[in-house]
Amino acid sequence: MTRADGRAADELRKVKITRNYLKYAEGSVLVEFGDTKVICAATVEEKVPPFLKGSGEGWVSAEYSLMPRSTQSRNVREAARGKLTGRTHEIQRLIGRALRSVIDLKALGEKTIWLDCDVLQADGGTRTAAITGSFVALVDAVNSIWGENSKPFPIKDFLAAVSVGILPNGVYLDLCYSEDSNAVVDMNLVMTGSGQFVEVQGTGEKGTFTQEELNAMLSVGREGIEILLDIQKETLGQLAWKVGREG
Amino acid sequence: MTRADGRAADELRKVKITRNYLKYAEGSVLVEFGDTKVICAATVEEKVPPFLKGSGEGWVSAEYSLMPRSTQSRNVREAARGKLTGRTHEIQRLIGRALRSVIDLKALGEKTIWLDCDVLQADGGTRTAAITGSFVALVDAVNSIWGENSKPFPIKDFLAAVSVGILPNGVYLDLCYSEDSNAVVDMNLVMTGSGQFVEVQGTGEKGTFTQEELNAMLSVGREGIEILLDIQKETLGQLAWKVGREG
Amino acid sequence: MTRADGRAADELRKVKITRNYLKYAEGSVLVEFGDTKVICAATVEEKVPPFLKGSGEGWVSAEYSLMPRSTQSRNVREAARGKLTGRTHEIQRLIGRALRSVIDLKALGEKTIWLDCDVLQADGGTRTAAITGSFVALVDAVNSIWGENSKPFPIKDFLAAVSVGILPNGVYLDLCYSEDSNAVVDMNLVMTGSGQFVEVQGTGEKGTFTQEELNAMLSVGREGIEILLDIQKETLGQLAWKVGREG
Amino acid sequence: MTRADGRAADELRKVKITRNYLKYAEGSVLVEFGDTKVICAATVEEKVPPFLKGSGEGWVSAEYSLMPRSTQSRNVREAARGKLTGRTHEIQRLIGRALRSVIDLKALGEKTIWLDCDVLQADGGTRTAAITGSFVALVDAVNSIWGENSKPFPIKDFLAAVSVGILPNGVYLDLCYSEDSNAVVDMNLVMTGSGQFVEVQGTGEKGTFTQEELNAMLSVGREGIEILLDIQKETLGQLAWKVGREG
Amino acid sequence: MTRADGRAADELRKVKITRNYLKYAEGSVLVEFGDTKVICAATVEEKVPPFLKGSGEGWVSAEYSLMPRSTQSRNVREAARGKLTGRTHEIQRLIGRALRSVIDLKALGEKTIWLDCDVLQADGGTRTAAITGSFVALVDAVNSIWGENSKPFPIKDFLAAVSVGILPNGVYLDLCYSEDSNAVVDMNLVMTGSGQFVEVQGTGEKGTFTQEELNAMLSVGREGIEILLDIQKETLGQLAWKVGREG
Amino acid sequence: MTRADGRAADELRKVKITRNYLKYAEGSVLVEFGDTKVICAATVEEKVPPFLKGSGEGWVSAEYSLMPRSTQSRNVREAARGKLTGRTHEIQRLIGRALRSVIDLKALGEKTIWLDCDVLQADGGTRTAAITGSFVALVDAVNSIWGENSKPFPIKDFLAAVSVGILPNGVYLDLCYSEDSNAVVDMNLVMTGSGQFVEVQGTGEKGTFTQEELNAMLSVGREGIEILLDIQKETLGQLAWKVGREG
Repeated sequence: MTRADGRAADELRKVKITRNYLKYAEGSVLVEFGDTKVICAATVEEKVPPFLKGSGEGWVSAEYSLMPRSTQSRNVREAARGKLTGRTHEIQRLIGRALRSVIDLKALGEKTIWLDCDVLQADGGTRTAAITGSFVALVDAVNSIWGENSKPFPIKDFLAAVSVGILPNGVYLDLCYSEDSNAVVDMNLVMTGSGQFVEVQGTGEKGTFTQEELNAMLSVGREGIEILLDIQKETLGQLAWKVGREG
Repeated sequence: MTRADGRAADELRKVKITRNYLKYAEGSVLVEFGDTKVICAATVEEKVPPFLKGSGEGWVSAEYSLMPRSTQSRNVREAARGKLTGRTHEIQRLIGRALRSVIDLKALGEKTIWLDCDVLQADGGTRTAAITGSFVALVDAVNSIWGENSKPFPIKDFLAAVSVGILPNGVYLDLCYSEDSNAVVDMNLVMTGSGQFVEVQGTGEKGTFTQEELNAMLSVGREGIEILLDIQKETLGQLAWKVGREG
Repeated sequence: MTRADGRAADELRKVKITRNYLKYAEGSVLVEFGDTKVICAATVEEKVPPFLKGSGEGWVSAEYSLMPRSTQSRNVREAARGKLTGRTHEIQRLIGRALRSVIDLKALGEKTIWLDCDVLQADGGTRTAAITGSFVALVDAVNSIWGENSKPFPIKDFLAAVSVGILPNGVYLDLCYSEDSNAVVDMNLVMTGSGQFVEVQGTGEKGTFTQEELNAMLSVGREGIEILLDIQKETLGQLAWKVGREG
Repeated sequence: MTRADGRAADELRKVKITRNYLKYAEGSVLVEFGDTKVICAATVEEKVPPFLKGSGEGWVSAEYSLMPRSTQSRNVREAARGKLTGRTHEIQRLIGRALRSVIDLKALGEKTIWLDCDVLQADGGTRTAAITGSFVALVDAVNSIWGENSKPFPIKDFLAAVSVGILPNGVYLDLCYSEDSNAVVDMNLVMTGSGQFVEVQGTGEKGTFTQEELNAMLSVGREGIEILLDIQKETLGQLAWKVGREG
Repeated sequence: MTRADGRAADELRKVKITRNYLKYAEGSVLVEFGDTKVICAATVEEKVPPFLKGSGEGWVSAEYSLMPRSTQSRNVREAARGKLTGRTHEIQRLIGRALRSVIDLKALGEKTIWLDCDVLQADGGTRTAAITGSFVALVDAVNSIWGENSKPFPIKDFLAAVSVGILPNGVYLDLCYSEDSNAVVDMNLVMTGSGQFVEVQGTGEKGTFTQEELNAMLSVGREGIEILLDIQKETLGQLAWKVGREG
Repeated sequence: MTRADGRAADELRKVKITRNYLKYAEGSVLVEFGDTKVICAATVEEKVPPFLKGSGEGWVSAEYSLMPRSTQSRNVREAARGKLTGRTHEIQRLIGRALRSVIDLKALGEKTIWLDCDVLQADGGTRTAAITGSFVALVDAVNSIWGENSKPFPIKDFLAAVSVGILPNGVYLDLCYSEDSNAVVDMNLVMTGSGQFVEVQGTGEKGTFTQEELNAMLSVGREGIEILLDIQKETLGQLAWKVGREG
């Protein structure tokens, strides 16, 4: 069960999160899961979507885009087509939903935080990298407006995501593109710092899976998430202490 | 743990599948999960998407739409907006993917089967009703072109879907709209006739969930799926025997 | 001059109007002209188009859509194309205009009533069925907001529509699809309960027509309209008395 | 019954058709009905819409557009909105349908003739001016490809269109914009050189109309059409003899 | 160095500007540079784009469109495509920018003046004709709202534009379409009445150019501009005195 | 005449071009002009636009996009709006045109080379940085398909671009965003390795300029271009020798 890049089946690729990657954004990171590279930029906007106007609550929303040559063959820009693909819709809804699960939107107040996830290079796992990186950018952005405020920090817990898949010869963590193409079952897992599930999305387009296989994927995924959480904490340094702080 | 409509927590709503609901389609059903009503129409088209041309393989694709007054307040037509919402994209991708998991696309040959799922009334669970009903329409459509062909019937297994959710006071099967609005966790489960998972999509936007809660949802969902499979078989009558037939 | 379905030349198909077809709409019917089946849903919205803001007047607007397998071969969804066809524009403008001719928009006040006409099955005459059915849904919707109000009911007269055509061998009422395809001249007629014309649209794409032929079509059409008006009245029962009531 | 511009009730505005208005088009006119001015340009294209490929038949199609300051207040370009209005769709379908009624599409062969109707100034009756002018441009365009061909000229008859309306004080021919705004009933009439009807479109949005009123409108309209036909013939000069020529 | 139409290399085509070409617009001209014909209509709108709301300043914006048969082969309407081409964007941005350079937007106050440039016939130089003609329409439109106001007239200087090109055998002024197609370098020059440059756009797609060639083009262009300015002044008559008037 | 960052008026910002920035593209660079950072990715596609099919000639085309937080306040994605802005159209047309001026499209053969310019950070001069960087990516992409081919290398000359502007107190090279916002005149200059002009685009929206000022801008710009050409050559190393090689 050796992999193309020599990793063990339950081993993550080299993960790196570079903070303050962009000059203007309130929070921004370059997140790398091996050759997968995503810029996550967080913007604080002083308004909310229409359904929240006057509610006192805030919102977190994500947008996702593949750069044309992030992929092996050039993909046509969605701006040139004039509309988003279904895949993009699905991914950006997932990212937004995941991040909203760990933020206290009432405490945030009537603000929207946008997470722009632009994929420079796509070698599998772009959505899980985007969630993992966006969490760090979100912490920075919230911190930029929270400052020395004595109220509890509105981000209640850590959040990371990883992919797991069943290939013909076993369960593998953090699939790269060539593995993903051969996966019989593909799972994306989003979990919090306290070990709760936020999203469990297992899909068997090329095959189906049993309860046992599901459990095996969850178990391997959980281990990967724990390592990602450690990397986030290290990256955030002192700021990590604010997450989940009761005030 | 009594519900608004008197059901038990692990009880499905009244499910009804009416075959041959439309005059022109190769397969069509009206599927009802309580007040949720969806028309599923299957069309056989003698061509395939560009990426399959010349491959000898077929395809199954789904489209989903809410009629404007399927919902409590009128929703604006996507045709009037000029584009699909992210929710529609997500649902129709799910339906297509789920159906493809039980059909032998090579055996089908270079044909596309379209499943049009139009929601007349939306009282929660439209996507699971759409998958469950579309499966029946798909069997009819494939049968219409397969006839007395002695080759194995290309639909390899049954397929049904159900929703399960965690509400503040427990785990519930087949949520209606008012329950769905209060759910802390929402899961959609797609399974085959042989008890394998095809899709497990658990989402905790208003909260998170533990491994134990995940297992409870899977267990309740599995029971619901078994009943749906029985209803499909009864609805299909003699035709049910063709599904998974080895030839 | 016998027809495929055995009807006389001046005979309508079997017409059926089922009220309260949908659970949520303020008014809704399933209208059937033979195999042509259209759902007409009326929605009351507490706002008006920009050009009426502050005028004190209301508006009635219609939208029309063919479900993909309402037709013999699947028609591509307008939502997927991203725009409405010219035919759809033309039909929904006709429906709205026709309904506005019998409602007192000043008495209605600053409200919009939307009529959503979704064609389940299209066997010719969908626009005339849609007008005839929408009228009933409109009465129900207006009644739902008018209640026991002592002011004159704002719907001033009945309204129905029928198609007539010239085929190579004569003038026929209420054409089904196969007849419509062979028609030399096609006319749609909208009339009120008091026998006035609202719309006369005669089109001779495959031929032209004389004054005498025009008169023959109007005469046959008028008879058909009278029967449709009777069916509407019977369907509405007691409520029929409110239409045109002076208060 | 005097009118703002001193015309009699059954009198046309000053009508002028200038041929060869544009340098590049195969046929082109500037048609003026009083202050209403429309450029009609005919283009011969050596292909047909998909539904006619290989049929040996041709097609005639029209496009219609208001220039932004053809109207009293500036109207937003449809190109800027990104889509056509319903009104534009309705008018361009009418123009195309009307022209197709007098051309032998089989004789034309697999060609499309486009009629581009661009309104420079809109003072009522743009669609009837467009049909009347487009007919002349169509004759020129067909002539440009027919030359001295001895086969029957494919344009079988003349074609003109006029509007008639019922105002509070009577029936009027060829309404200008201010009259049109006050019309209770508005009718557009398209007729052939031999006095047959092609389109009768009577609409009573602000009121309804009786059989007698319909007859009065048809009678006044017919007289107007006859004058328009004379103007077309005079404009075409020698070429007028080719229309309807049996070969 | 004789040209197809007998002009000298540094000679303009016959230029004609007809004022008050349209009935409804606040200012309108038909501008002709030889066979190139453009309608320029100026509209005064009592609002400004969002970024100027409350600023007290006005705006000038242009839209440009080729009529389908302004060109040798029919060009598809941008309204039918649903979007503007890059060429259109580029040209209308240029026209707006050029006109804004000679108007005192603060003095104008919170108004937008739209310049609609619709090309009837395109024989090269449509953008320079559009700028030259729009200037005259702009003066008329501003005059229509300025009246006998004693404040300085907000148009500060004259403005005209011309094209110059390098063909294989020399530098030519005001290229017609056939010359433009063979040009190695194409330059558009916009200048004020006082001889200042507003835009210098030299492009060498089929070749490159030296400093000397640039100077030669600027010199020939400047002479052409001077003649255009004279024609504008003559066309405006008395009104020409208001331009640049200090009050 | 000192600048915010201490540069001299005729001094470029720190320029850096990093080759092979992306894993999959045939050529790719990260180009930095100070804080302006643009990824330029070159893709070789084995087909040409319709107007070149069968011509034996190739094409070079560019697309340009600002990432949402490349700018001080977040800009809405063009994919979300569904269309490109005029500014984007203008810039990507400029980039494509400029690159085509130095490539022998016949020698290239029926291939398209796409240049995708994605702006990570926008601090003024993104279009000139994009042209300068794209040239290097283009050389790499052409080299990847040319290999040891003995035919003349199809890139005939070097190409670089720079901005120059007139501020209230003088002429400045390579404006950063804050300078650009205050510029009275803005010029973009594209030149070849042999000192020829490809594009001269001088625009005076906030003012106008004289011949002397134009000359001063061209002179300062030319010096900047020379330094950029040196940086390109150094970056390309050995490969620089192929450019303009006669075979």
